[in-house]
Amino acid sequence: MKLQVSVHARNVPGLTQVRSLAFDIFGTVVDWRRTIVREGVQLGSSVDWGSFADEWMQGYRSQVERVRKGERPWANLDALLQETFEGLVVKYKLGKLPAKRVRYLSEAWHRLRPWRDVLPGLARLSKRYTLGTLSNGNMILLTDMKRYSKLPWDCILSAELCERYKPEKEAYTLAASFLGPESTQVMYVASHKWDLTAAAQTVGLRTAFIPRPKEMPGIDPSELKPDPSYDINAKDLMDLATQLGC
Amino acid sequence: MKLQVSVHARNVPGLTQVRSLAFDIFGTVVDWRRTIVREGVQLGSSVDWGSFADEWMQGYRSQVERVRKGERPWANLDALLQETFEGLVVKYKLGKLPAKRVRYLSEAWHRLRPWRDVLPGLARLSKRYTLGTLSNGNMILLTDMKRYSKLPWDCILSAELCERYKPEKEAYTLAASFLGPESTQVMYVASHKWDLTAAAQTVGLRTAFIPRPKEMPGIDPSELKPDPSYDINAKDLMDLATQLGC
Repeated sequence: MKLQVSVHARNVPGLTQVRSLAFDIFGTVVDWRRTIVREGVQLGSSVDWGSFADEWMQGYRSQVERVRKGERPWANLDALLQETFEGLVVKYKLGKLPAKRVRYLSEAWHRLRPWRDVLPGLARLSKRYTLGTLSNGNMILLTDMKRYSKLPWDCILSAELCERYKPEKEAYTLAASFLGPESTQVMYVASHKWDLTAAAQTVGLRTAFIPRPKEMPGIDPSELKPDPSYDINAKDLMDLATQLGC
Repeated sequence: MKLQVSVHARNVPGLTQVRSLAFDIFGTVVDWRRTIVREGVQLGSSVDWGSFADEWMQGYRSQVERVRKGERPWANLDALLQETFEGLVVKYKLGKLPAKRVRYLSEAWHRLRPWRDVLPGLARLSKRYTLGTLSNGNMILLTDMKRYSKLPWDCILSAELCERYKPEKEAYTLAASFLGPESTQVMYVASHKWDLTAAAQTVGLRTAFIPRPKEMPGIDPSELKPDPSYDINAKDLMDLATQLGC
């Protein structure tokens, strides 16, 4: 009888040093689009909430790019989300809806819900690894989300701490400095290839890719394929825990 | 019959806005001296571990002061603790003891244990308030301690983030910015009056004083007395929870 030998990533050269995992949040850990759609539907039925969510995301991202290019001064994500939201309130005629509930919706990014594999996967990973965020979301947004969605972070790290948005090098340096302190001691977990590749190339973080095909409609299929240039390719956080021997 | 009416601090003007509590760590939350003495005693019986612990604390504090005065460049607390420890290894002749166990002791500040009221007190406070650290300890030290001692922090904030040690204004500004964002939304909880007073005077944080008479021998009794200039004077974190209506 031939025994199936489980090969754990902990035994893969280069990964035995890893002591902490840093997670991208929007898309990788939380399902921002469905959370916003669900909250929107509770508010009113006459709005295309999918388009609303997509425009909210695209709007803040284009402002993040303007900050990165130096076209506007630093502003944290709450500020960029709020100004984008105010434009959408006009475009989608939310002024007709109760003001208090519209204001509540404006903070939906503080209440994003995790994908189904996240809480059980993080519970397994937490036994062996220190778990942190590394997000363009600001500190209070991430802290509120941690409480609301019961995410077991040991440490909240945000681009706000260095006032440089990912994929700027300084943001990844945060994870290395505060969760390492050697960059080879930290594995960055993300669903967007631009983000992972930057983390590896700028500061040498280890990388784990988790595809999230349901993040939004129209994702380029090549963005979902495993890529051997990452240290680990996993289906989800449960699979990541298995591959890391947790 | 006259009913005893419980007056909750939440109803005291000025405290209703508080949404987050930021905690000093060494002395206020964890019993650094007894933890070090306990670990030391396990290592060897021929050392006065109480004096060792006191000198370790005094040594790092004097280096913190040198950083504050600009007499040496920024160095995080792990660096200051390690260099102080190395001097004590010579002075207390720890070279005779097993090197691996001495190295383990050198990281004792990552494993400090909380006072008895802390875990039950924080569990009550966490139901209503966002809980964060605000310590001169560095990020990894605080994050390791959170995991080791199961402290329910939502957010780790450290002087390391701004490279300015308390009582510099910049350190208290962290708590206001990332747990507020208004300074009146954050209450700072500490056992040292110099620290609380600076937090109130420099950035206007609300304040709660918790005396810790057993922190170390020889504390000036006036340092343990309630002071009406603080928003709350509590006996311990359970009493703080009661006074805040949790």
